[in-house]
Amino acid sequence: MKLRDNFLLAVALTAASAVSYAQQRPDPAVPGYAYGERKLAKAPYTMADLKGLQASLLFTAEDVEALRQSKEILADQTDAILDVWYGFVASTPELVYFFSNAKSGEPDGAYLEAVRKRFALWILDTADANYDQRWLDWQYEIGLRHNRLKKNKTDGAPSVAQVNFRYIPALTIPVTTTLKPFLAKKGASPADVEKMHAAWVKSVLMQSILWSQPYIKDGEF
Amino acid sequence: MKLRDNFLLAVALTAASAVSYAQQRPDPAVPGYAYGERKLAKAPYTMADLKGLQASLLFTAEDVEALRQSKEILADQTDAILDVWYGFVASTPELVYFFSNAKSGEPDGAYLEAVRKRFALWILDTADANYDQRWLDWQYEIGLRHNRLKKNKTDGAPSVAQVNFRYIPALTIPVTTTLKPFLAKKGASPADVEKMHAAWVKSVLMQSILWSQPYIKDGEF
Repeated sequence: MKLRDNFLLAVALTAASAVSYAQQRPDPAVPGYAYGERKLAKAPYTMADLKGLQASLLFTAEDVEALRQSKEILADQTDAILDVWYGFVASTPELVYFFSNAKSGEPDGAYLEAVRKRFALWILDTADANYDQRWLDWQYEIGLRHNRLKKNKTDGAPSVAQVNFRYIPALTIPVTTTLKPFLAKKGASPADVEKMHAAWVKSVLMQSILWSQPYIKDGEF
Repeated sequence: MKLRDNFLLAVALTAASAVSYAQQRPDPAVPGYAYGERKLAKAPYTMADLKGLQASLLFTAEDVEALRQSKEILADQTDAILDVWYGFVASTPELVYFFSNAKSGEPDGAYLEAVRKRFALWILDTADANYDQRWLDWQYEIGLRHNRLKKNKTDGAPSVAQVNFRYIPALTIPVTTTLKPFLAKKGASPADVEKMHAAWVKSVLMQSILWSQPYIKDGEF
């Protein structure tokens, strides 16, 4: 079973590599969205590291399939998903703080809006589940943008210096809990909704772990 | 709804504090189990930090209830759960490595067995869901024991220097996936099994975040 899963995952990853160049060019309509841009720094973790992490997360080819099944379901719902998600952030002082103006303490509307446009593309990218070096490099860039090393720079935002580490893996729960009703809105069977939801939980947790790398002491990631 | 949940959580936490001294004395039959021992260092995070983290994880009084409901179900199944769990670790080279003898590279049986005894108590402690300063201090100690600062010291194990950070939050998935069938074995309704499972996912992720603190750069946790 495990060997078979690994084999299927390898097949899926190979197929993913073949199509990913066509799918993930930076979208010029969304400032700061840089997935696939050659100027991105190379991630400090490798594809082999990713495979080990996926094994420890029970992330298999079935999860890749389930994520891709979710793309068509979610594609025209990203705005509605982001309304719910931003509602949660706005009502949680610990989270809205990270979007606040560092001087006034008030939420920064322009910053929230700039992030929101990239967030919509992130939903689709997560559903694409194409794992290659360019994907790794983009995860690293996303991590840097949460850390004090690069937060606020993309949007020139006048906000606080960092998103504290502890909230990054934690957000796996509200992001995927928020998503679940939307997965169920297009007639997928309850069993398929469960599979897609479980795959999303694994993928978001996996990404949040990669995003955490800039926070980790040297040699301990 | 949110206010009500916070209120119920406060009530649950107060009730928990009242009984926790009686419940969590160190078990002298399990070497290295030190929950509640006064010699433990004070955690670098506070009860207020924990509340913020719980809010960001959507962890409410319902989750406390669901965890406690799971205790009676799991209490006589910890050995069977650990058989499955250890089977997964043994079959995943990335994970069994952390139990290996640093010189021979072979899994260290005595170390695995010593950790297993504490793991059984951890299952029950997680189900108890008693959150107070002693619980926080014990989470910090568990984190230190994964990090190079204290790994191997409790058992005098001749093992590798650290569990790499990235596997710690990742293990939320196999731990809680392993657990789910056991939650269903004592006749709880499917809806209750889902609630207990969801509460376990939140609790294990929350704990893994606290355990990660020793890995995080100063001021970024």
